Amino acid sequence: MSQSTQNFSSQQPKGMKDLNDPRFARKDIFPDLHLLDGPLQQYRYKATFDWRQMRLITDPLPVWEVKYKVWDFMQKNPLFGRSHETLPLDEQRKIATKRAFSIFNEKIFSIEQYLETPELGQKFSTAITAFDPSISVKIGIGFGMFPNVIMSLGNERVQDLVMENQRMENIGCFALTEISHGSDSQRMKTTATYDPSTKSFVLNTPNFEAAKCWVGNLGKTATHAIVYAQLYTPDGKCHGLNAFVVPLRDKKTHMAFPGVTIGDLGEKISLNGVDNGFVLFSNYKIPKEYLLSKTGDVDDEGNFITQYKDPKKRMGLSFAALSGGRVGICELATTYGITAIIIAIRYSASRKQFGPDNSNIEYPVLEYQTQQYRLIPHLASIYAVRFFSNWIGREYGKMTLKGFTGEKVSVESGMEMHAISSAGKPVSGWIVRDCIQDCREACGGHGYLKCARLGDLRNDNDPNLTYEGENNVLIQQASNFLIAIRAKGWNSFENASPLGTVAFLKDGEAILRSKWNWSKIECVMKPENQLTIMNFIVAYLLEKTFNRTKSLQSQGQSSFDVRNNSQVFHANCLAIAYGHRQIYSTFLNEIQNLPNSSSEREILTKLLSMFGANLILTTYMNVLYEGSFITNVHANELLQTGILQLLPVIKDEAVALVDAIAPPDFIVNSPLGMSDGEVYKHLENFMYQTPDTFTRPSWWKDVVYKENYLPTSKL
Amino acid sequence: MSQSTQNFSSQQPKGMKDLNDPRFARKDIFPDLHLLDGPLQQYRYKATFDWRQMRLITDPLPVWEVKYKVWDFMQKNPLFGRSHETLPLDEQRKIATKRAFSIFNEKIFSIEQYLETPELGQKFSTAITAFDPSISVKIGIGFGMFPNVIMSLGNERVQDLVMENQRMENIGCFALTEISHGSDSQRMKTTATYDPSTKSFVLNTPNFEAAKCWVGNLGKTATHAIVYAQLYTPDGKCHGLNAFVVPLRDKKTHMAFPGVTIGDLGEKISLNGVDNGFVLFSNYKIPKEYLLSKTGDVDDEGNFITQYKDPKKRMGLSFAALSGGRVGICELATTYGITAIIIAIRYSASRKQFGPDNSNIEYPVLEYQTQQYRLIPHLASIYAVRFFSNWIGREYGKMTLKGFTGEKVSVESGMEMHAISSAGKPVSGWIVRDCIQDCREACGGHGYLKCARLGDLRNDNDPNLTYEGENNVLIQQASNFLIAIRAKGWNSFENASPLGTVAFLKDGEAILRSKWNWSKIECVMKPENQLTIMNFIVAYLLEKTFNRTKSLQSQGQSSFDVRNNSQVFHANCLAIAYGHRQIYSTFLNEIQNLPNSSSEREILTKLLSMFGANLILTTYMNVLYEGSFITNVHANELLQTGILQLLPVIKDEAVALVDAIAPPDFIVNSPLGMSDGEVYKHLENFMYQTPDTFTRPSWWKDVVYKENYLPTSKL
Repeated sequence: MSQSTQNFSSQQPKGMKDLNDPRFARKDIFPDLHLLDGPLQQYRYKATFDWRQMRLITDPLPVWEVKYKVWDFMQKNPLFGRSHETLPLDEQRKIATKRAFSIFNEKIFSIEQYLETPELGQKFSTAITAFDPSISVKIGIGFGMFPNVIMSLGNERVQDLVMENQRMENIGCFALTEISHGSDSQRMKTTATYDPSTKSFVLNTPNFEAAKCWVGNLGKTATHAIVYAQLYTPDGKCHGLNAFVVPLRDKKTHMAFPGVTIGDLGEKISLNGVDNGFVLFSNYKIPKEYLLSKTGDVDDEGNFITQYKDPKKRMGLSFAALSGGRVGICELATTYGITAIIIAIRYSASRKQFGPDNSNIEYPVLEYQTQQYRLIPHLASIYAVRFFSNWIGREYGKMTLKGFTGEKVSVESGMEMHAISSAGKPVSGWIVRDCIQDCREACGGHGYLKCARLGDLRNDNDPNLTYEGENNVLIQQASNFLIAIRAKGWNSFENASPLGTVAFLKDGEAILRSKWNWSKIECVMKPENQLTIMNFIVAYLLEKTFNRTKSLQSQGQSSFDVRNNSQVFHANCLAIAYGHRQIYSTFLNEIQNLPNSSSEREILTKLLSMFGANLILTTYMNVLYEGSFITNVHANELLQTGILQLLPVIKDEAVALVDAIAPPDFIVNSPLGMSDGEVYKHLENFMYQTPDTFTRPSWWKDVVYKENYLPTSKL
Repeated sequence: MSQSTQNFSSQQPKGMKDLNDPRFARKDIFPDLHLLDGPLQQYRYKATFDWRQMRLITDPLPVWEVKYKVWDFMQKNPLFGRSHETLPLDEQRKIATKRAFSIFNEKIFSIEQYLETPELGQKFSTAITAFDPSISVKIGIGFGMFPNVIMSLGNERVQDLVMENQRMENIGCFALTEISHGSDSQRMKTTATYDPSTKSFVLNTPNFEAAKCWVGNLGKTATHAIVYAQLYTPDGKCHGLNAFVVPLRDKKTHMAFPGVTIGDLGEKISLNGVDNGFVLFSNYKIPKEYLLSKTGDVDDEGNFITQYKDPKKRMGLSFAALSGGRVGICELATTYGITAIIIAIRYSASRKQFGPDNSNIEYPVLEYQTQQYRLIPHLASIYAVRFFSNWIGREYGKMTLKGFTGEKVSVESGMEMHAISSAGKPVSGWIVRDCIQDCREACGGHGYLKCARLGDLRNDNDPNLTYEGENNVLIQQASNFLIAIRAKGWNSFENASPLGTVAFLKDGEAILRSKWNWSKIECVMKPENQLTIMNFIVAYLLEKTFNRTKSLQSQGQSSFDVRNNSQVFHANCLAIAYGHRQIYSTFLNEIQNLPNSSSEREILTKLLSMFGANLILTTYMNVLYEGSFITNVHANELLQTGILQLLPVIKDEAVALVDAIAPPDFIVNSPLGMSDGEVYKHLENFMYQTPDTFTRPSWWKDVVYKENYLPTSKL
């Protein structure tokens, strides 16, 4: 047990060389945390690196500036005042809508700027998410996804809708999923039949099972929707799912148009500011022009015209516009994970419990090995997803930009982005899910208070595992991608990887022959070696899955059955490992770009070692033994000892590490996680200022006069 | 991919030999599920066992009768009508209080009956929990724990309070935890100083950090509390924590007494019907008689008298009355897990998605390997915790009964119960935590609806991981127990195990020499062999931990540091494995008591194999390789193949397996999990009947007139 917490007296924070470094002049972004009194100080003074420098590694200054512009606006705007208690559902919808409008209206950045620096779009939304994701989701769908889809799939006939949208004259939503069909979009039942006599499409919903549902913004606010429907031409032919812009509500009265039945999906586990809705159409006519016709059009007589013969390819293209959603979810998840780990680390550094027998000394719970192991591996993985989300956001941004400017995006990079976003979204969501849960538990009883926020974070992250592709279904896109390339031979990976997520597999055969040949802790904790291990894991699982599919084929199973019967212990693990490995290597690249001797690089390297060692130990030892990569029994011990040695080292840096990624207290908004670490003062403050904390309940007579219960109970 | 779902036509359910078997005459408990039309029928007809017989294996008929008495009362009582939306906090408190009073008032069983058959007490509470745990928690604390503690720790002076309590003339609560001290109760700061002049104790709370908190029932309803305070005698000596009965509120006006400041802890992640509160005392006098004096008393002059010299031992005894809480939590968790798996299995058997290429056939998602692996291992572990909770409930019941009747409970069985409840509570809670989460994800988007209930189940189970001992701290009680016995030599386990949870360790040395010597799937899936593996795991982790503590001691670390530094990868894993192993062996015993050839025994054996194989594969392979129990690389493959072979077999039994443990639809109360499997009809019904589903929001003008946003956004 480290005694370090007992002798705290230092004049200057170890890691902060120059307190007045001009690069950190903006005190809102780089507050003087080291001047705050309180329980966190001993840790801040012990940290060996400059948290402000680290802040600029996790996001560049312009990004922090946009974030603080958003947070500053919120803090000054009465609309963003918080309530002490969960509001009624309708109230939550109302306030989220008003907040969404007011902040979007603020034009913190314009669509033009967005087209210039797509990164800002995501980070603007990140800043809002940190306050309340319902707002960013409503903006993202209503004023982001909606116009984007029109821009990428619609022809010039409908582009004016985009301008109106940016002037907030219409509010969009996106309707694909139906009550009885989600992942299996091919079988959706909503129809759009072309009527040459009126040059319009007639929309119909056969029954409730075919109602479009889970449509964010639809329940109470949207005026227009992108609707995917089976397109029928007068000759009775079905041309598969096509996207249409559909006016839903009268812009002046906000009443749904005749033929459009809009329902609210009701209360959800969380994200209740978002009014998810469902809609049924009954002979509802929309002008022909509202077909988003870039992938296929209908002439006045009703002939279907397209340059893409294969309907699957056509649908693939019309869905391509959506992969942005998966990329965005990596950032959503990262934002939740950051808030959770801030709260848990600061609380654990402030909360004292137990101490040496027969002494008055009490240790912060962060000093205990158990608590360190419960949190520090998550701190490492949150840094990992932070860098991964930045990377995939940048790469996707570049592509979108090319798309808008008409520049050609190579088929390979499109496919690789599809694959890595289909693995990265599930894996990031799961990493954050586990992080939030352990943070909740590590904060004990007080972590169960609503005001601690950990419950909301868990409930907000939960849909990340489902929407934009149910994780276990979506992730098959990644394994299919890897298996298809493998079928063409290992060397095919070289040209299949403009983004560099699978290039390493060109040496698959050599990788499969590699072995664990380390007997020193330093070696197994070395990132380069851990990457070697991750490479083997992906290659091995790919080969295992590839062989499984071959043997199932040789048994004469259909491709459908082969795919379904090669998931568990095979394709599913492969895709997850592919995601883990890319998150790991992105983190490593990030470090390799830092100045060699910098203390930030040093601590990040330790974090990466912790991330890798714990990931391998808790998830992949089976694979390494099964694949004969490990043949000696000491591998476990080396990793375990490496982790146990690193825990107390990172423990002293943990507070500064969360300071680096932390938004202001107004945004963290948890009595357990404030920057001064004064947990009990904030708890007392919160409880004493909650209405009716000390009052006798209005229904006190129901407590006192129990005779009233006899009647009801004697029915 | 099994085609079985396509050719469904059978006249009599395979597993139900005699449809009119008189043992199943009560149609409320054994409804004719096989007569219900709908998507679940094909599975019900395929099941090879009689779900009604299985029902009686999971709980005896008298228990089901008590449960149905409770559920029937609720269904007939308007107080138990459900709302479509989360109620405001104060409303939730009010309704939970009224429901608690009315059902307790119903005297479904009396305290006398409880003393006769303690099991009924737990199962009565189980039935209420299945509807809403807030009610059972309020009753359990107010009318169960409160009188029990007085009976076991108080002398005759206070026994009248027990009778009043059972007449609902007082409502109890239990105040131990303080804001800044939970697990470390020794350092609590609330004081009770004896004043000889008035023959009373004066209670004081130095500051907010010392406020008693998390006290269920305290916030709004309790009239009395059990308060643990540091007892000071006039000579200024502190005699450690002692328990007192403390009147809190005037029974007629329900106002807190002068000197008592009661606050409400506010909104929590869930369980919001329970009014958790905090309390501060300021020179608050209570009569001397209110000291619960069985473990220590004060004479009129203020001399402390006790037969237990060691204060720690004294406190141990006064806490012994609390282990019932941990046993109760095993049952709470089991109840949540049962509801979750019912919902997920029924939904997966009803929900169809995808089918063979170029066909109109759609498969229930339960037909997919991935979905099977997501749910069936959890179905197995829920059966496992069901049997474990029954076992520990019975054993604890026997002890309590002895306690009340004054019969001697052996020190050994007391210690073993303390250990196994300290491991069983965390492990059961974690098993159910993971089950609920996977059920939530496996139900996709519709599983995220509030009405699906999976979110509430997760949030309700969450505190099980924290209260009655934070899991990671509490579980050390189990490892300490094992290490202490091991220190006396393996053979000491024989006499230390009246409950039989550690007796097997008397052969520790032989167990440590045992090896994996199976090369056939049947062998590794055989429960007896899996138990051999579990035995090795516990013995190995015990030896590993024991050696770790010895080496830390030899480095001169204090016992405090040794304990803290031998948790991660050691004592913590040991205690968890001990819990897993006991859950496993309880399940096995349960099976061994069934008639040899019965089809129920057959399917339960498969469930146990699934539970064991998956537990070993996902959690313990490291240990088996590290401990050289496994030396060949095919062990993984054998377990994986065994699981893959069993999944489609159990899949066909899954619906009947959840029917066997399912409460009536009124209690399951999820559109996804009703017994007829008509998911979409129930969803439509729920949404169409939710107020304001189709209406324009009252705040529609905030949507239409956006110019209103300019002012607020231009502050």
